[in-house]
Amino acid sequence: MNDVQSYTDTRGISLDQVGVKGLRYRIGVVAKSGKHHEATATVAMAVDLPHHQKGTHMSRFIEVFSRHHENISVQSMPKLLAELQTRLKATNVRVEMAFPIFLERVAPITKAKALLDFDCHLIGQMRGSEMSLVLEVKVPVTSLCPCSKQISNYGAHNQRGIVSITVRPAMGKDGNLHQIWLEDLIDVAEACGSSPVYPLLKREDEKFVTEYAYENPAFVEDMARDASVRLQSDPRIAAYSVQVENFESIHNHSAYAMRGWTRKQKVA
Amino acid sequence: MNDVQSYTDTRGISLDQVGVKGLRYRIGVVAKSGKHHEATATVAMAVDLPHHQKGTHMSRFIEVFSRHHENISVQSMPKLLAELQTRLKATNVRVEMAFPIFLERVAPITKAKALLDFDCHLIGQMRGSEMSLVLEVKVPVTSLCPCSKQISNYGAHNQRGIVSITVRPAMGKDGNLHQIWLEDLIDVAEACGSSPVYPLLKREDEKFVTEYAYENPAFVEDMARDASVRLQSDPRIAAYSVQVENFESIHNHSAYAMRGWTRKQKVA
Amino acid sequence: MNDVQSYTDTRGISLDQVGVKGLRYRIGVVAKSGKHHEATATVAMAVDLPHHQKGTHMSRFIEVFSRHHENISVQSMPKLLAELQTRLKATNVRVEMAFPIFLERVAPITKAKALLDFDCHLIGQMRGSEMSLVLEVKVPVTSLCPCSKQISNYGAHNQRGIVSITVRPAMGKDGNLHQIWLEDLIDVAEACGSSPVYPLLKREDEKFVTEYAYENPAFVEDMARDASVRLQSDPRIAAYSVQVENFESIHNHSAYAMRGWTRKQKVA
Amino acid sequence: MNDVQSYTDTRGISLDQVGVKGLRYRIGVVAKSGKHHEATATVAMAVDLPHHQKGTHMSRFIEVFSRHHENISVQSMPKLLAELQTRLKATNVRVEMAFPIFLERVAPITKAKALLDFDCHLIGQMRGSEMSLVLEVKVPVTSLCPCSKQISNYGAHNQRGIVSITVRPAMGKDGNLHQIWLEDLIDVAEACGSSPVYPLLKREDEKFVTEYAYENPAFVEDMARDASVRLQSDPRIAAYSVQVENFESIHNHSAYAMRGWTRKQKVA
Repeated sequence: MNDVQSYTDTRGISLDQVGVKGLRYRIGVVAKSGKHHEATATVAMAVDLPHHQKGTHMSRFIEVFSRHHENISVQSMPKLLAELQTRLKATNVRVEMAFPIFLERVAPITKAKALLDFDCHLIGQMRGSEMSLVLEVKVPVTSLCPCSKQISNYGAHNQRGIVSITVRPAMGKDGNLHQIWLEDLIDVAEACGSSPVYPLLKREDEKFVTEYAYENPAFVEDMARDASVRLQSDPRIAAYSVQVENFESIHNHSAYAMRGWTRKQKVA
Repeated sequence: MNDVQSYTDTRGISLDQVGVKGLRYRIGVVAKSGKHHEATATVAMAVDLPHHQKGTHMSRFIEVFSRHHENISVQSMPKLLAELQTRLKATNVRVEMAFPIFLERVAPITKAKALLDFDCHLIGQMRGSEMSLVLEVKVPVTSLCPCSKQISNYGAHNQRGIVSITVRPAMGKDGNLHQIWLEDLIDVAEACGSSPVYPLLKREDEKFVTEYAYENPAFVEDMARDASVRLQSDPRIAAYSVQVENFESIHNHSAYAMRGWTRKQKVA
Repeated sequence: MNDVQSYTDTRGISLDQVGVKGLRYRIGVVAKSGKHHEATATVAMAVDLPHHQKGTHMSRFIEVFSRHHENISVQSMPKLLAELQTRLKATNVRVEMAFPIFLERVAPITKAKALLDFDCHLIGQMRGSEMSLVLEVKVPVTSLCPCSKQISNYGAHNQRGIVSITVRPAMGKDGNLHQIWLEDLIDVAEACGSSPVYPLLKREDEKFVTEYAYENPAFVEDMARDASVRLQSDPRIAAYSVQVENFESIHNHSAYAMRGWTRKQKVA
Repeated sequence: MNDVQSYTDTRGISLDQVGVKGLRYRIGVVAKSGKHHEATATVAMAVDLPHHQKGTHMSRFIEVFSRHHENISVQSMPKLLAELQTRLKATNVRVEMAFPIFLERVAPITKAKALLDFDCHLIGQMRGSEMSLVLEVKVPVTSLCPCSKQISNYGAHNQRGIVSITVRPAMGKDGNLHQIWLEDLIDVAEACGSSPVYPLLKREDEKFVTEYAYENPAFVEDMARDASVRLQSDPRIAAYSVQVENFESIHNHSAYAMRGWTRKQKVA
């Protein structure tokens, strides 16, 4: 049976990424608590393709991934990437997983508990023997408009927004990447809004959240800056970017602020 | 060349809808102003298929639609439906178009103007010689929570919501369906929120909208009821339903209210 | 602290559904294998609201659901519905969950295994003391066009399609609803295409699947009918509907077939 | 009335993009034919924000855009960008518009005509006095798998795919950017699949397209390379990237190939 993918290509065009995309798979992600987040991920995996080879062997991505899917973490990523590199005979390899995780949130007054969902991304790349890693969280918050509060006799428009934080872990003194938990990044993002959002609020809680947000107005610009200040001072983080989108309650469009990739001094 | 679709089927199963779906097409929709809304529609068209026929002739939907797309209206719908009925040799035919239209909105104080977008649906059905028509609009509004306002010392959570109104026009004394403009239904929906949303608000306008919303708190339940009261009393409308969804600013989920299809007394 | 939701409403408009929507939650669904599907669900829950009551108490939906989310099944649905009914003081209650499940699929020749994803819906309703239940699966398949095969000298266009099956379980002699597994409905749907799709196919498998699909051409109409025939003859099923959508490879739109809700003779 | 946005910020964090997002607006895009594409766009507009300024004035984006929306083109982009720069008092400004356009497509044998939809992006940036421009088209095609054809006794799996081409126009000798039409890029993309897709095909056409695709098998890798070869040799193009995604008919995931941004020798 011919191996068409291994034919020689003569167009002289190398490709940066060749692989599978839109693959949904069940994964287990190591949680800060020590347990696993049982999650549904949308996965993309790709390798580079040298100019002389006609195609890659797509089925091998699935073969390799199906051996690793139950134990995904920052620590296990190098092994997954290296195995793809070997199995696909590739120099560069990239894996991206998007998945929601659920964390318990406690109402501020009644202490009622329920789960809140957070979209996360984990991206690992291996270029030759050099690995890089990106973690991203997308965190819902309430934001209350400082301008609306200032100029109005009463009330202030507020809305749900999404604070997205993306980081690259720094290298530690021991030659390993610093451990950064998705849960830690979520904490940073939640602290930047006018208030966190909650899955479950009784009336006493709603009063608290309403007044708390009114006391802490924040533009998208403020939230992006507050998150940046926190990420800037965290020695575990080598680089970061922040995006904030507010689903404006008085418009049918969003307000938006972004601080692009910011590389910090190399941490020791 | 064999006509496989015309083969006889022996499974004894008739189908209610067979056709095309997810077709994007440029359409011109007659506007209340007399001009056209130049819109991009997502179109579904279907006919019934009797148990003895293997398949329908899908290309004919596109042929017929491409002769009508530039002039869509409540008035032109019967002709489109009848032509599909004939061309597809069908008893029942259904056309659904989803498209956004743009209307000018004027800021309340500065009178600054810009366009606001509204998602609309137009559904026409012909069953034998009996035609029915459904119009739907999905209208963004601001809503401010009456409970949050009542129990808090200051502020009140508010958010964008969508008021969806769906109607069937009543038959007039002249034997024709009453003319109902999408623009009229949008007006009804906008009047049911704590405030309309606007594409363009200067500071004076933002102050006005903030205070106006604070003075007009509304639950999803209130908005669904206010719209129902208005639709109930409109003699041009034979039946209606209302759905309201609020993208809660203090949660990561929506609040929702719905009054299902309500048939009114036959209007004269 | 005032209970605004309990205020009296004088508009005289009752609402059919009031509740929460777009709630994402982690759930555990009892699997046919006896284990659990750990899944991420999008959940809607609603009750009816009598005309004289201003609003419902939205937080109670989350309270109740967060006590049940880890053990969802056809068997546990009545308890969840009854608890919502009581807690919300409602006559009618409705819960809808949409979630993907993952099942192992084995390649036809090499027997290579990996997981395939299937979107499912579970809808439970309680109207007074009468419960009803709807199960839905959306199953990807390959379909190969019988017309294209017939008229062409070689080749035939084929594409991914989605077969959606929706059923209501029948009442058994013992007064309980028949057990129908999502896994069983998925099997019915997969058998109706030109071939199942697979997560992982090696070359020998790809040859098999290509030829198998070529030998089993099917229109959307054929797939809808084949599924209907199977559902029609299954005594555990009281009513069913089938929808099939093909993402046509030669068009930028879909072909579509639907058999609407079909109630069968009451099974004993 | 206080201008809160103009307050001084002391956090020392500048932002790369601050603006509006998810704005839907009616636009008129100059077409190659000389007429306009009447389109519905999703628009994002942003400026940079220096570290010392608290916020930007979001309403001004809408004010400016609503003066330009009816006449969008590569030629008019500099004026729109410059006006935003001035009105927002910004150094850097970015406008992105995503919209579908419709082009007539003629069936290969019967010459039957109908419209086909193509998603497009237009991105303009002004950094100080330096403007850059990006055009993107996303073009549906049919692709037939070379491996499946080679190894199977009959048939070959095929599916719809999307070829995305992104380019930066080169500077001409006259100091102006070369004119590149979206329509030209669509032609390039359509030529790279196993066959174009069509809105309307009669039986004779379907036979032609089926056989044509069978004679022209192409992996995602082949399509990405063929597009790259064409873009590489076009002197009007300074840089390009290509992405191809196939919605595999035998899997529930996509195959994917990408050639990243490729800067060519400066063209004269």
